[in-house]
Amino acid sequence: MRAVYVEKPHSYEVTDMPEPEPGPDEVLVRVKACSFCGSDTHLIEGKMPGVIYPLIPGHEWTGEVVSTGELVEEFSPGDRVATESHAGCGRCRNCVRGFYTICENYGRKPLHRQIGMTANGGFAQLCAVPVKLLHRLPGDMPFTTGTLMTTAGTAIVGLETCGIETGDRVLIYGAGAIGLLTMQFARFLGAGDVCIVDTLPSRLEVAKKLGAEITVHAGTEDLDMILAERGWKGGADLAVEAAGVGALQAECIRRVRRGGRVLLLGITAGEEPPAPLNRFSLDQLTLYGIRGEGDYSVERAVRAYESGRIDSSPINTHVFQLEEFEKGFEVFSGKKDNAIKVVLEC
Amino acid sequence: MRAVYVEKPHSYEVTDMPEPEPGPDEVLVRVKACSFCGSDTHLIEGKMPGVIYPLIPGHEWTGEVVSTGELVEEFSPGDRVATESHAGCGRCRNCVRGFYTICENYGRKPLHRQIGMTANGGFAQLCAVPVKLLHRLPGDMPFTTGTLMTTAGTAIVGLETCGIETGDRVLIYGAGAIGLLTMQFARFLGAGDVCIVDTLPSRLEVAKKLGAEITVHAGTEDLDMILAERGWKGGADLAVEAAGVGALQAECIRRVRRGGRVLLLGITAGEEPPAPLNRFSLDQLTLYGIRGEGDYSVERAVRAYESGRIDSSPINTHVFQLEEFEKGFEVFSGKKDNAIKVVLEC
Amino acid sequence: MRAVYVEKPHSYEVTDMPEPEPGPDEVLVRVKACSFCGSDTHLIEGKMPGVIYPLIPGHEWTGEVVSTGELVEEFSPGDRVATESHAGCGRCRNCVRGFYTICENYGRKPLHRQIGMTANGGFAQLCAVPVKLLHRLPGDMPFTTGTLMTTAGTAIVGLETCGIETGDRVLIYGAGAIGLLTMQFARFLGAGDVCIVDTLPSRLEVAKKLGAEITVHAGTEDLDMILAERGWKGGADLAVEAAGVGALQAECIRRVRRGGRVLLLGITAGEEPPAPLNRFSLDQLTLYGIRGEGDYSVERAVRAYESGRIDSSPINTHVFQLEEFEKGFEVFSGKKDNAIKVVLEC
Amino acid sequence: MRAVYVEKPHSYEVTDMPEPEPGPDEVLVRVKACSFCGSDTHLIEGKMPGVIYPLIPGHEWTGEVVSTGELVEEFSPGDRVATESHAGCGRCRNCVRGFYTICENYGRKPLHRQIGMTANGGFAQLCAVPVKLLHRLPGDMPFTTGTLMTTAGTAIVGLETCGIETGDRVLIYGAGAIGLLTMQFARFLGAGDVCIVDTLPSRLEVAKKLGAEITVHAGTEDLDMILAERGWKGGADLAVEAAGVGALQAECIRRVRRGGRVLLLGITAGEEPPAPLNRFSLDQLTLYGIRGEGDYSVERAVRAYESGRIDSSPINTHVFQLEEFEKGFEVFSGKKDNAIKVVLEC
Repeated sequence: MRAVYVEKPHSYEVTDMPEPEPGPDEVLVRVKACSFCGSDTHLIEGKMPGVIYPLIPGHEWTGEVVSTGELVEEFSPGDRVATESHAGCGRCRNCVRGFYTICENYGRKPLHRQIGMTANGGFAQLCAVPVKLLHRLPGDMPFTTGTLMTTAGTAIVGLETCGIETGDRVLIYGAGAIGLLTMQFARFLGAGDVCIVDTLPSRLEVAKKLGAEITVHAGTEDLDMILAERGWKGGADLAVEAAGVGALQAECIRRVRRGGRVLLLGITAGEEPPAPLNRFSLDQLTLYGIRGEGDYSVERAVRAYESGRIDSSPINTHVFQLEEFEKGFEVFSGKKDNAIKVVLEC
Repeated sequence: MRAVYVEKPHSYEVTDMPEPEPGPDEVLVRVKACSFCGSDTHLIEGKMPGVIYPLIPGHEWTGEVVSTGELVEEFSPGDRVATESHAGCGRCRNCVRGFYTICENYGRKPLHRQIGMTANGGFAQLCAVPVKLLHRLPGDMPFTTGTLMTTAGTAIVGLETCGIETGDRVLIYGAGAIGLLTMQFARFLGAGDVCIVDTLPSRLEVAKKLGAEITVHAGTEDLDMILAERGWKGGADLAVEAAGVGALQAECIRRVRRGGRVLLLGITAGEEPPAPLNRFSLDQLTLYGIRGEGDYSVERAVRAYESGRIDSSPINTHVFQLEEFEKGFEVFSGKKDNAIKVVLEC
Repeated sequence: MRAVYVEKPHSYEVTDMPEPEPGPDEVLVRVKACSFCGSDTHLIEGKMPGVIYPLIPGHEWTGEVVSTGELVEEFSPGDRVATESHAGCGRCRNCVRGFYTICENYGRKPLHRQIGMTANGGFAQLCAVPVKLLHRLPGDMPFTTGTLMTTAGTAIVGLETCGIETGDRVLIYGAGAIGLLTMQFARFLGAGDVCIVDTLPSRLEVAKKLGAEITVHAGTEDLDMILAERGWKGGADLAVEAAGVGALQAECIRRVRRGGRVLLLGITAGEEPPAPLNRFSLDQLTLYGIRGEGDYSVERAVRAYESGRIDSSPINTHVFQLEEFEKGFEVFSGKKDNAIKVVLEC
Repeated sequence: MRAVYVEKPHSYEVTDMPEPEPGPDEVLVRVKACSFCGSDTHLIEGKMPGVIYPLIPGHEWTGEVVSTGELVEEFSPGDRVATESHAGCGRCRNCVRGFYTICENYGRKPLHRQIGMTANGGFAQLCAVPVKLLHRLPGDMPFTTGTLMTTAGTAIVGLETCGIETGDRVLIYGAGAIGLLTMQFARFLGAGDVCIVDTLPSRLEVAKKLGAEITVHAGTEDLDMILAERGWKGGADLAVEAAGVGALQAECIRRVRRGGRVLLLGITAGEEPPAPLNRFSLDQLTLYGIRGEGDYSVERAVRAYESGRIDSSPINTHVFQLEEFEKGFEVFSGKKDNAIKVVLEC
């Protein structure tokens, strides 16, 4: 099969690779589409902690079932599927209790696997994964759009963890894929007013199209004045960092009301920003962080899209072919041509 | 002022009454609209526990501020307001912790008041209430529609208590006002598929218009088959009793999946139905009950409607004048002419 | 090896059986002690739903590791271990999210196993189980006492689910093993006053010895008066049914204060008792049910006992040898000689 | 009456003051004992945000009821009482929902009062407060010990908010009164192993006497090695900052295991320490902060002490008379003579 092979940081190519064989509780999938995630950039640049090289990357993908291991009853050949990436060890304290994205055996083969990070992933024509990572793709959803289910799962588990109250005022930093999906799901889950902040006007345009009540251009617009006019007295009910910038993590803590909540979704390069931690005891704040999708959330993402009340397809701005991996990577990582999510058809 | 005066059960009239005077932390409101609730029927028939006669009833109302007590800063004359009804004592364990609808001093004057139940309410031209019970009416919402804010608060606090997960399958028994609002807010809060069951085709029509994915006529349609076709394998994620019928409370327990949740909103006449309680330990269920709006939920209702993404006005099927109280009561309590909510302009 | 073989309901014997062989992620354990649970009585009498015969029963046991499968790193030969019994499928929605005692594939071999219910258990000299079911036995705890860890796990997950608040008043029906452990752990987790009710004076004696503040003999003492004298105004904060009697499940609902919680741990023979469900909406109650230990709770049980602040050994009233299975069963199921937990040394 | 009068920062004296008169829902209390809190030091030094001068300070006190306002039914003259300090406005969103320590009207008289901060407190012979702030002092508890109920309430609401799981490993920085009480209540609520860290050997001695499993001297002992020997693999389940030091707040974030929780109780002078916020998304942590007792927690503190299973009296190291305010303040603020809590008899 054809696949992207990353031998080590900065060294990758599209080449021939042996086809994977599914184990007894695994499913062999004909990959149809696989999208780039920010962590893929880190992976290729050698900055993602925990990656095991050499590797076929790709953890946001969709495809069609080719065959199933002997213990698999849930799927049949031809079924269209979306995926999660974290296959925890299934036996440590965290996995057993449902927190498998923070598996205590992370990276220890063969106990644990994260598809596209410590085991071969979806930038390939075929991929074999444990059945528990697969979810039926919503009815008529295109394979390219379906690659968003994984990131949608992250948005969902983040918002479900910190909770949305009816009519909440939600402030989001970062209008990349995770920020936009968090914006959409905050509204799907009952937020009243969502404000999203970014430096790229093109991304704010997409945010508006996807439903954001308020969009703010970080460089030129006055966030304080805009929120005051909108009636956000006292600050946001919930502030979300989805840009992966330390200073914005600290800013989220400043921006919530007394009793407010902060959610950190972005991953920084290990920055330790000065943070107004005193606010936590003075103003009774709570801060949550979420590692990836987990909590079987992709199944709930699928249900949400099946309702027909949410459409995230504009986030997929570019589609290339698997053989064009390098080009796709450059467009994505350079945010060229207003790229947000770049998908490869495999 | 003109007001409805209920001297005792079955004995009521529209008559002249002295105007109320607001205390220092109270607001005097010119009532504009007040709607009938099922508990008003109980009140008039002498079947509502806790009512203190004689009384001006009415706890779902809207109006315009006339004047404010000396300690009130939140409102000014002319402000348009919606209301809550439970003014807890503010000092028992439950009130201090925020659970003021189950005040431990319920009914003990002057510590506690429930407007329209133990103190004069909104079927009158004027009403004076503690400022904490008032919330600004959403922008251009008509006063008649605004009377729904109170019941919307009940739906909200019920759903927030038992939790909606993204894409949940929700089954609701009863398409009266509380059932319909629970259906709408379940969807507003992220449910994927909501099924509502009733015996009145006209109410199911309204449910469909308000967004219900599935409506089932209790007498003639096969709920099992309909849910099976819809893919509800294993039962509902959440089942809500909103009809006030003991047998349906027990039915809710049967209808949820392993690990599912049940929410009881309806109030029965004290029935003790045979209930499959064994399911709780065998299938790890949870059952929640909610007493009225509370938890400052009307403010969140207001925010939800302000978003423009929800419209419940079709629930208000009839509008009469205050002097037509008797006619309104008959239409409402007899469900005449497909009545759901009946509102009086005051 | 010697083992108890239950061919079908009412038909059992101690006999020679082939030794089990551990799979790659399994551990072979030399069983040291195995105790009877109420569900074992149901199993032998053919009244336990879901049991797959023929079967070696026994799900509350301890032992010493003999050997480990190739993927097991957590244990070495000679390690002393306690157990859980539910090995969920690890891939359905409930298992993946941590709710493996309500596995959606319960009873479907080979996906799912419950040791001693659908797969061979601990009334034998050897038993092989997935490593995730094993927890290190607290330091110097005797093997016989260690058999209580499984039931302690159930008490823990029950109490953690419904929550104990500092100083809570807890009412427990049933002073069998699960009732007594729930009493002890309610106190360990911060309850202030625990009252336990039973019909057997000998069990109430044990309850007193284990720390119960209040014990009430169901037939002869006046619970109302005793609780009133103790200052339990308004009812219990939490009421727990641990006797498996439908009428007591309903009684728990009556016995909690406004805003109180009910926990159902006992399993009845499918009774559908008349229940005052109206209290849930009028008084804002919540009802929880728990199926077995789960949630990795045996590990937390072990930690609790390691603290040295809790000792449950008096619950183990009788010890016999494996060959005396019949005698042990009779003493246990007949509650002879004041038996509570009966343990067999294997 | 005699009282401590703080005219402005650094300017205080014991002098004659007019006796307070209780309002209709207030209670006049003969103060018996009042203890110094760290925030009193800030208050006297002019570093406590929100204080309204001139003022009688003192918010941790006990006494005997002298008389009650006309609306008070809960207490009678002679009743012995403990106190909370935050009397929220009772009508803002936070107060109505039970979060009155973060009242949105904080400091706005007469809507809001915090006794001893924005209204006259307990360093006096008499004090009048709203009845909702009073709780019956446990049976035979001395008035001096009873002054700890307020701080115990803070420990309780902190721990209840972040949750203790059975057998948790809890790490606490700071062995002052709040750290010691948090240590004791962590154990009361089910922690398995509690480690407390301080720089003062005398405080660690008290910690040991009060039950701490592990005490670590910050300057000379190796925390890593001690915890490793104790088996704390992966870090604490919960880390609590109770010293009010920014660097320790950040250290708490470093010290918890994947999936762990951090609780901030200490108040710093507004420091913004560099914090490893990246851990929140990578390791799925949660951080909680609590502002003072609140949540009716003093009532639960009372219940806990009534159980007889907890004794915090060694925390009160010094007792002086009201007229010795200056001496008491110096001993307390200078930590002279191994002082922890210093109490004045009034």
